[in-house]
Amino acid sequence: MSNRTDARGRRPGGPDTRGDILRAARESFASNGFSGTSMRGVARGAGVDAALVHHYFDSKDALFVEAMALPVDPRQVAATVLDGPREEIGVRIVTVFLGVWESPDGQQRMKAFLRSVVSSDQVAQLMRDGISRLILAPVSEVIGGNDARLRVSLVASQLIGMALTRYLLELEPLASAPVQTLIDRIAPVLQQYLTD
Amino acid sequence: MSNRTDARGRRPGGPDTRGDILRAARESFASNGFSGTSMRGVARGAGVDAALVHHYFDSKDALFVEAMALPVDPRQVAATVLDGPREEIGVRIVTVFLGVWESPDGQQRMKAFLRSVVSSDQVAQLMRDGISRLILAPVSEVIGGNDARLRVSLVASQLIGMALTRYLLELEPLASAPVQTLIDRIAPVLQQYLTD
Repeated sequence: MSNRTDARGRRPGGPDTRGDILRAARESFASNGFSGTSMRGVARGAGVDAALVHHYFDSKDALFVEAMALPVDPRQVAATVLDGPREEIGVRIVTVFLGVWESPDGQQRMKAFLRSVVSSDQVAQLMRDGISRLILAPVSEVIGGNDARLRVSLVASQLIGMALTRYLLELEPLASAPVQTLIDRIAPVLQQYLTD
Repeated sequence: MSNRTDARGRRPGGPDTRGDILRAARESFASNGFSGTSMRGVARGAGVDAALVHHYFDSKDALFVEAMALPVDPRQVAATVLDGPREEIGVRIVTVFLGVWESPDGQQRMKAFLRSVVSSDQVAQLMRDGISRLILAPVSEVIGGNDARLRVSLVASQLIGMALTRYLLELEPLASAPVQTLIDRIAPVLQQYLTD
């Protein structure tokens, strides 16, 4: 199997080459953090040519997102949130966030993800890196002002807390409140954090 | 050791009778929930007379608080929060909450506590019970209105999320923001949740 070549004669590796690369990436992100990880280093760790890593993954961000097995692509979340009028950004943020959590598959994966962030310092550090780079940075840039990052991290804290309280702690009546009720209550708060 | 009697001739149990009662209480709360646990049942589980449970613990609430090894007594938190003008309740809540987390001992215990809530469904269920009975109920009663419990649970979600983001995820700049900055930003949001 590992001797197959693709139509262009390039060795795509064994059937699990992509998996080998992801495993090596996870190890490297965990040991060296995001900035200490390179595509070349991951290739070395997986025992493949660096070109093969680029063949499977467009960029280090893309590799990171896949390696973390995030239930959603944070870059897409950031893009959706930023696409629209600024005075409705609070509504968009909580709507997108609840949309991910309310899908049956999304909820299981997000719960597992939140649990691993809380139980492992290593996963927490990676998430810190990932959220900072892929969500906080682009959203803060659009919000502007020298306290933009604090504002965005306060929004993150409310969203994380809502998810934990509703889906893991299942505290009533928040746990069974209709999605629209939550949007109505939380959106103004996020808007206040971001733009007041 | 277990045959000692105290000055009044009552058998106080071995030196770890109190510990035995707490262990039996933890088992019962975990298996049967708060409402399914009785002082008498705990006594039976610990192999002691029910009077001895009452000797060590004033009430089932007191037994619950001790059995959960909470870093703070939630009844005291509720009392502090409710003691003062209603229009400053947001400030009081976040100040008390941050006060617990910012003390060095409190921070370690609260982190351990938050981790156990997230990783164990059983602990989560107990906390749900405990927070509902000892904090949500009395605070909601003072807030009033038919959506008081939803309002208070939204406040809980922001506090839990802030703690998780600041102390476990350590997301910057929220992680190293001065306490007063957090009070200034979060208090108006809590006030809005509760009284708007």
